[in-house]
Amino acid sequence: MIGSRRPTLKPGGTIGILGGGQLGRMLVLAAARLGLKCQIFSPDPDSPAFDVVQNATCAEYADVEALELFAADVDVITYEFENVPAATAMILAARRPVLPDHRILETVQDRLLEKKFVAGLGIGTTAYADVASAQGLREAIDVIGLPAVIKTRRFGYDGKGQAIIRAGDDLDQVWDDLGTKSAIVETFVSFEREISVIAARGVDGRVECFDVTENEHHDHILKYSRAPAAIPDALAAQARDTAEKIAVALDYVGVLAVEMFVVPGASGPTLLVNEIAPRVHNSGHWTLDGASVSQFEQHIRAVAGWPLGKPVRRGSAVMTNLIGKDVLDYGRWLTVPGTAVHIYGKGPPLPGRKMGHVTEVKGRD
Amino acid sequence: MIGSRRPTLKPGGTIGILGGGQLGRMLVLAAARLGLKCQIFSPDPDSPAFDVVQNATCAEYADVEALELFAADVDVITYEFENVPAATAMILAARRPVLPDHRILETVQDRLLEKKFVAGLGIGTTAYADVASAQGLREAIDVIGLPAVIKTRRFGYDGKGQAIIRAGDDLDQVWDDLGTKSAIVETFVSFEREISVIAARGVDGRVECFDVTENEHHDHILKYSRAPAAIPDALAAQARDTAEKIAVALDYVGVLAVEMFVVPGASGPTLLVNEIAPRVHNSGHWTLDGASVSQFEQHIRAVAGWPLGKPVRRGSAVMTNLIGKDVLDYGRWLTVPGTAVHIYGKGPPLPGRKMGHVTEVKGRD
Repeated sequence: MIGSRRPTLKPGGTIGILGGGQLGRMLVLAAARLGLKCQIFSPDPDSPAFDVVQNATCAEYADVEALELFAADVDVITYEFENVPAATAMILAARRPVLPDHRILETVQDRLLEKKFVAGLGIGTTAYADVASAQGLREAIDVIGLPAVIKTRRFGYDGKGQAIIRAGDDLDQVWDDLGTKSAIVETFVSFEREISVIAARGVDGRVECFDVTENEHHDHILKYSRAPAAIPDALAAQARDTAEKIAVALDYVGVLAVEMFVVPGASGPTLLVNEIAPRVHNSGHWTLDGASVSQFEQHIRAVAGWPLGKPVRRGSAVMTNLIGKDVLDYGRWLTVPGTAVHIYGKGPPLPGRKMGHVTEVKGRD
Repeated sequence: MIGSRRPTLKPGGTIGILGGGQLGRMLVLAAARLGLKCQIFSPDPDSPAFDVVQNATCAEYADVEALELFAADVDVITYEFENVPAATAMILAARRPVLPDHRILETVQDRLLEKKFVAGLGIGTTAYADVASAQGLREAIDVIGLPAVIKTRRFGYDGKGQAIIRAGDDLDQVWDDLGTKSAIVETFVSFEREISVIAARGVDGRVECFDVTENEHHDHILKYSRAPAAIPDALAAQARDTAEKIAVALDYVGVLAVEMFVVPGASGPTLLVNEIAPRVHNSGHWTLDGASVSQFEQHIRAVAGWPLGKPVRRGSAVMTNLIGKDVLDYGRWLTVPGTAVHIYGKGPPLPGRKMGHVTEVKGRD
């Protein structure tokens, strides 16, 4: 569907990355191992990814001159977050290939368009309705029922921009609190578990999925990921097929994450797609230590036009996020045999801030 | 024996590294994963390690002002090569802790002092003699016999600064060709195999050795490393004990490599220590992919004052150096399942230049 220019970099080539957080930082480290350079573009002078590149651009995403200079310095451009402003992406795409194609962001930046896209592929999603007013919310609830979840259509993450609606809640108040003009309401799903599939797609169209990961959130923030997920093989295969189908339908190049719910059903558990993240994803961090090739390396290979690796899982992996003051415990984690410690180089350990993660890999399952 | 100041860094602390080659680069990448920053000091503007740090000092090792500024920027200093000039090390050590202690370099920079040190620990070495003239060479050969190996006492690596002497060679010519005033002559050892042990020692004195590695050189340059080495368990244990004994005797902090020969004997094979490298070592590159903690991370942990990891080998590993034009074959290596590709970000693939390496890890032995 999308026919962008797709370059093949040589060792020594430079990948431009929009965003300077931990995902950008880990992309840089993966690129460095392959002999590729990165340049980071981020408005935040304290970006942890700045530490690991020779050249960084600290500027606003609306700074056209900075974007032009950045584009001139690099061979291909990618991003570590999905909320790249459309104007930014367009300015860059006029000058250098942007991978994954920035037009994909139009779909996945908007929860309503994303739901429609997924449902249009014949993939199960939660029931949902478009809502643009308190009156619309009342009408949607009449159809969807309660409890339900309301989410802003754009810019939500880690539980921000969403709320659960229960019987008896004041719907006018809920609408006012959300502070948006466009939202979607979804059925509140009583899931058995949350899983995700990290899929990589190369310029040649080949898709490689990592083993399905099971995720546990605390306070809407990912706390633990376990791979492989404790689900039947057939369901795991279906989850991977679903992620592959989405990657192919988007003509995607790079790594994406598809979050799904496993819900109980009369004839066994079924899957509902919850969300697509068009980037490397926290639930794939275990691949750094638990697989022969990581999600970060797969993404770098894809955007560089290099062949994807064939991921081989090294055992069963448990990834624990170090959130806020959790990171102060790094000294203990350093002494746990077989455990890899990752610290992101951020400032103070504020509550809810992802400061690092640890991965324990054990045996071969 | 050596009581240097030994700091404990916090995440966000900065390690200064002398030398900007691939070893420095891989040290930087290991430090970054742990949330530690690095600053590289190297006289070579094309240093591959410059690519992965925000702050680099490109200056000569004799540039006192540059050294002072560098020391002021960092919390602790280490190095990626053993030929750090003594004056450089002294200037830095007066300002910041230098680990491993720079006085260790006086021993291991000089093949004669190194041999005496190892022999003094009751560890087997090849027979050797100090030589300072063509006449001295003749006298040494009378004692040692032929064939023999002559080596400059200082600054040799990858077969440079050494020659084999066979019966009938013109000893005056050999001496003139070596172009040195101080050399040692050693028995030419008919070894069964070459092995090495990578040992790490923490500030707390704890030593962790990786499994013994077997090394194969082509044209005096390491071509393949295999871990574990195909030697009896008792011999492997002895090799590790030998490396630990050396690390303890040096009061070493950081990673060192001990190269040994396995030589046939009437009552089974025995070990002779060939050389100590006071740094991370090419024969330990397999640990990046084949062990739960790499030699680079162990070195960073040690110089940061952090506890060492307990290395768990992930299977049998084969490391292949990509020398010169070997690196042009990276595209094929990228497609070999279970193989990790490392490219160092150097310039042209000159003959003999180490451009990268690949590691294949298979099963659990």
